[in-house]
Amino acid sequence: MSMDALIEKIKETGNPTVAGLDPKLDYVPEFIKEEAYDTYGKNAKGAAKALLAFNKGLMDELSGIVPAVKPQMAYYEMYGLEGLMALSETVSYAKEKGFYVILDGKRNDIGSTAEAYAEAYLGESKIDADTTWTDFPADALTVNPYLGTDGVLPFVKQCEDRDKGIFVLVKTSNPSSGEFQDLVIDGQTLYERVATLVNRWGMSTVGKTGYSGVGAVVGATYPQQIEDLRKLMPNTYFLVPGYGAQGGKAEDVAKAFNADGLGAIINASRSIMCAYKKAGAPEADFAKAAKEEALRMKYDIIRFI
Amino acid sequence: MSMDALIEKIKETGNPTVAGLDPKLDYVPEFIKEEAYDTYGKNAKGAAKALLAFNKGLMDELSGIVPAVKPQMAYYEMYGLEGLMALSETVSYAKEKGFYVILDGKRNDIGSTAEAYAEAYLGESKIDADTTWTDFPADALTVNPYLGTDGVLPFVKQCEDRDKGIFVLVKTSNPSSGEFQDLVIDGQTLYERVATLVNRWGMSTVGKTGYSGVGAVVGATYPQQIEDLRKLMPNTYFLVPGYGAQGGKAEDVAKAFNADGLGAIINASRSIMCAYKKAGAPEADFAKAAKEEALRMKYDIIRFI
Repeated sequence: MSMDALIEKIKETGNPTVAGLDPKLDYVPEFIKEEAYDTYGKNAKGAAKALLAFNKGLMDELSGIVPAVKPQMAYYEMYGLEGLMALSETVSYAKEKGFYVILDGKRNDIGSTAEAYAEAYLGESKIDADTTWTDFPADALTVNPYLGTDGVLPFVKQCEDRDKGIFVLVKTSNPSSGEFQDLVIDGQTLYERVATLVNRWGMSTVGKTGYSGVGAVVGATYPQQIEDLRKLMPNTYFLVPGYGAQGGKAEDVAKAFNADGLGAIINASRSIMCAYKKAGAPEADFAKAAKEEALRMKYDIIRFI
Repeated sequence: MSMDALIEKIKETGNPTVAGLDPKLDYVPEFIKEEAYDTYGKNAKGAAKALLAFNKGLMDELSGIVPAVKPQMAYYEMYGLEGLMALSETVSYAKEKGFYVILDGKRNDIGSTAEAYAEAYLGESKIDADTTWTDFPADALTVNPYLGTDGVLPFVKQCEDRDKGIFVLVKTSNPSSGEFQDLVIDGQTLYERVATLVNRWGMSTVGKTGYSGVGAVVGATYPQQIEDLRKLMPNTYFLVPGYGAQGGKAEDVAKAFNADGLGAIINASRSIMCAYKKAGAPEADFAKAAKEEALRMKYDIIRFI
């Protein structure tokens, strides 16, 4: 019902970062794709099996180094049903390897429809109490707040009932995030309004570490806003995208942490997945390069917190 | 690149409504579930096959009566991978039967991630130009605007390139929709700000009927706002949820139409799917009851436009 499970893994690894698993085929080494196409055909299944093999290779090296992974659902949905099967296997494998799994789906809807999403990713599928299954057994899910409290509480309920978490979009990392999020109402920005409700939504889910199960997405590319939001949401865990490729620096993301050294998890996706390309390493060393980049990122960040 | 394809089907049927396909197992007649469980087992596959058989039965009767169907993705994701297979088959069957298909997924993300969602539901999955597939061949997708222009333009691009549509959440039908959407900035609500951008996002996609490919979701439960938004977005097609079960009346939703009798499509989901329950009809007549309710709704609405 809180972020305790995430915090435990962060403490175990001494690493407050999360590796995004957003596997476009372009990122996957040729030898992995060739093997998958030879075995399954150059088709949907072959593509999905290549993505899965890439993910597994990365997770094998990152296990014990990085506490969490964040599959971005869009990149699996992009490959259709086979892509979604690769997502299901990726989540299961991540759990086996001991990662905390944040599904980045930015889901949102109202009432019983929001309940359906919450059951899909934080709860369980069911026919009745005796017949249940879980194809996407994640620990946390990202959620878009535009629909208001009705659209968020069904997710909070799963946090309460099942020791799960959500991360609500507050201030996103993209260039046009301010278009709506920065609008000022009575001296307060929209993202600050959302932040105030994130506090309220999370109140019933505060764990033994003092953090609630309702986290916030706060982009690394807006360091001043990180600082303001840190004060406004003292009990909220921040999921911080935008470090590295999008321009967020370690000094910037350091502002997302509380004095206890906790309170934030910093995401990097492409810089880890494609580290072998940037390093000019042989493709066979893709996972080793990812591990080195993950360690570089860890030490880059923890020197400031 | 516009709503022309939808408008054509609305004119063919003389019916500006869309049937939501949100098939919870509770809605499905017992005889359909029993047959599916007998054939496939009382498990994920059996459940998904029951949903699909229910959808097909409904679509067989609604074809030619209702111009469009709107599967709500959450209810398929709720049943895991088998549920998503049922969604894929539902979309394909809807296309075969001549329906315009609006996938209600409220997807949202930034940059290349939004592109991935757009390709998944409005474009195609691909390895390269010679190897493509489409598991969810929808005509339109609902999109959440909280991330701003960066998060919407990748979807607009598919509208431009492929004669597809999107419906952007502007003013939703739920009780707490006003929490953020009604906030006032410099004399204008947030939903009006979003509406202004919907106009701009759609400018490159106006079709021969004068409507752009970028539509808006506007809830039937807020008739005054429908009227205001109709004036603010003259070239925008409105997808209007909230008629019937949520309290929106025909007089209310009539305000969503332009003087040309076009400009809106009114959704009903549970009232059509579960019409047999409300009518006390035998379960075997579920599809006939749905058709009768769809026709009742049609005539209820068109008398006002």
